Amino acid sequence: MQRLNPSPAIDEYWMAKAIQLAAKGRYTTSPNPRVGCVIVKDEICIGQGYHIQAGTPHAEVHALVAAGDNARDATAYVTLEPCSHTGRTPPCADALIKAGVARVVVGMTDPNPQVSGSGIERIKAAGIEVTQDVCTEQARALNPGFIKRMQQGLPWVRVKLGVSLDGKIALANGASKWITGPASRRDVQRLRAQSCAIITGSGTVIADNPSMLVRPEQAELNNYPVSAVRQPLRVVIDSQERLTPNWLMFNDGHPVLLVNQHFRAGFSQDVEQCQLPLSAAGKIDLHLLLAELAERGINEVLVESGSGLAGAFMANGLVDELIVYQAPKLLGDKGVSMLTLPDYARVSEAPDLKLTDIRHIAEDIRLTYQLAVDKS
Amino acid sequence: MQRLNPSPAIDEYWMAKAIQLAAKGRYTTSPNPRVGCVIVKDEICIGQGYHIQAGTPHAEVHALVAAGDNARDATAYVTLEPCSHTGRTPPCADALIKAGVARVVVGMTDPNPQVSGSGIERIKAAGIEVTQDVCTEQARALNPGFIKRMQQGLPWVRVKLGVSLDGKIALANGASKWITGPASRRDVQRLRAQSCAIITGSGTVIADNPSMLVRPEQAELNNYPVSAVRQPLRVVIDSQERLTPNWLMFNDGHPVLLVNQHFRAGFSQDVEQCQLPLSAAGKIDLHLLLAELAERGINEVLVESGSGLAGAFMANGLVDELIVYQAPKLLGDKGVSMLTLPDYARVSEAPDLKLTDIRHIAEDIRLTYQLAVDKS
Repeated sequence: MQRLNPSPAIDEYWMAKAIQLAAKGRYTTSPNPRVGCVIVKDEICIGQGYHIQAGTPHAEVHALVAAGDNARDATAYVTLEPCSHTGRTPPCADALIKAGVARVVVGMTDPNPQVSGSGIERIKAAGIEVTQDVCTEQARALNPGFIKRMQQGLPWVRVKLGVSLDGKIALANGASKWITGPASRRDVQRLRAQSCAIITGSGTVIADNPSMLVRPEQAELNNYPVSAVRQPLRVVIDSQERLTPNWLMFNDGHPVLLVNQHFRAGFSQDVEQCQLPLSAAGKIDLHLLLAELAERGINEVLVESGSGLAGAFMANGLVDELIVYQAPKLLGDKGVSMLTLPDYARVSEAPDLKLTDIRHIAEDIRLTYQLAVDKS
Repeated sequence: MQRLNPSPAIDEYWMAKAIQLAAKGRYTTSPNPRVGCVIVKDEICIGQGYHIQAGTPHAEVHALVAAGDNARDATAYVTLEPCSHTGRTPPCADALIKAGVARVVVGMTDPNPQVSGSGIERIKAAGIEVTQDVCTEQARALNPGFIKRMQQGLPWVRVKLGVSLDGKIALANGASKWITGPASRRDVQRLRAQSCAIITGSGTVIADNPSMLVRPEQAELNNYPVSAVRQPLRVVIDSQERLTPNWLMFNDGHPVLLVNQHFRAGFSQDVEQCQLPLSAAGKIDLHLLLAELAERGINEVLVESGSGLAGAFMANGLVDELIVYQAPKLLGDKGVSMLTLPDYARVSEAPDLKLTDIRHIAEDIRLTYQLAVDKS
């Protein structure tokens, strides 16, 4: 007989496994969340799974299929509350009930306030014991973008910058090849691959004529769960309508969202245009842009731009995470500073950050910060 | 009977102990080097010691006194080649010979090319077995300043900067209180305490009216081996002769070396003046200044200044180590960049660094770099 109330430590052990499984969906689940599931009986894992891609089975279904009839009286660990609605697949709450599990352990409830708790209620109503909020912080960390989109109607915004130790992204003449090393540039490929959209500005397009696509051979995406690498939507902000249709990224067969004030003719069919009003500063309103992207199911965006656009996101309080690849170089005071920000009168007015991760990337350091306090 | 040829691992074990002992002299040995000694017999430490202060016994003497007659046939581990000359104390090589040790293990030879090897020769000539270069790299790291002064006639130069993540040392209006946190400022006190001299410029004096003294209560100098904290020599560069005698640091009873072009009257007796010629750039020649400080027995200097003077040391290839306290703040492009450097045309012309240490200092990060390649 299954012991129904294992210790919190045992619950955390299996939830950690489910979280590791969920993380395998890092590059492919959006607009859905990353979810993992482990089914445990007599302290043995009898089934496991994770969600791979929207339209394909949810994590619970993979795990239940693996467990088969053995799932009866087992405990299911799921990183996110099982769904109670019929979407592209039937409700997972019903699948767990039908399989006869005795207990369900949940990492976090559904972040969508309109359905939060309904899957758990459905399972409880069937007489199944439910334990909630196990490893919640780690479970939440799987899906910062999905959670923010559900709760605030905005995607999770990461700003990535490659800088010298003295915070410069280029020399005075614009030269920036190469500040960071090849290992950092490979790491950026993985950041891109996990992002639903990349936002850049017309200045970067004109300066670098970049593709902003994931280069799979450089990204080293091991154990990628589907055959073709998902490419992020490239979002190009062109407030001043400086861009002509001939730049590389408009003609590589992958979609681009060109954000401007007025529709402009001559772009290829892969370039969708989106008209947004200008803010008081004469620039595309970035908050409206992010809301538009959330509407399109974009969970996580990566801003890869110059210091002007990156600084505008920062100064408008729209950045959730700042990822800095810092190279062991000094470009000096004449170089281009990494972020254009207002002219603060006191140090206490300047944005505060909270360091959440630091690691060596070959010769460089990668520093990850979250925005500590909204000072706006 | 003492086993005379223990494994390299055993030698490294005891040398590591001797190095830890030597490091206790971090704040007090100059102009002498930091040296530690362990005397081992039958795999037991029978005596240990480290050099505390010039004019007091050397490490070997402390250890031999502790070991007493037991030192006969023992092995002595010394981080630096025992001296063979009579200075303020008699030669340590003779003391080891007289004590009858069977073997001497040495971390590094004397860096002074004129006496290097003579202590070892003297010990060998007495029929004692000598093993050299055990943990040499770590032994050398104890005394970067002493070694450089002996070999090049220049002190080891550290530049310390407290910066925001985007490499700014102040806002556009000069405000810089406080970018880094209190733990970083305490750590700087320890850096100061281990420095023989602090170099600053007239700009910093005029902006902050600082004392540049070690504040012992803030430095938390645990187990300090002498009663009074050694204060570094404050070296103030005043190329333009802007400083008047009334600034705090000229009147606190501790010595200052004021570096200028012409002797100026009116300063207190604690202010020694040193006239040096100007370089082509109209500034005090920093190479000549460093040579002058080495002449005075200064092993390690700490540059605590604005971006102009710090950048001048860097641009002239005079910096050995750069220590950056990086705060989780963004001051933006209008802030003051940490180092004034030439306007490089290509990224490859800019100074490359080698990261040698990184650690959390409360909310800040302390990054230690050595200069990787001399590009001058």
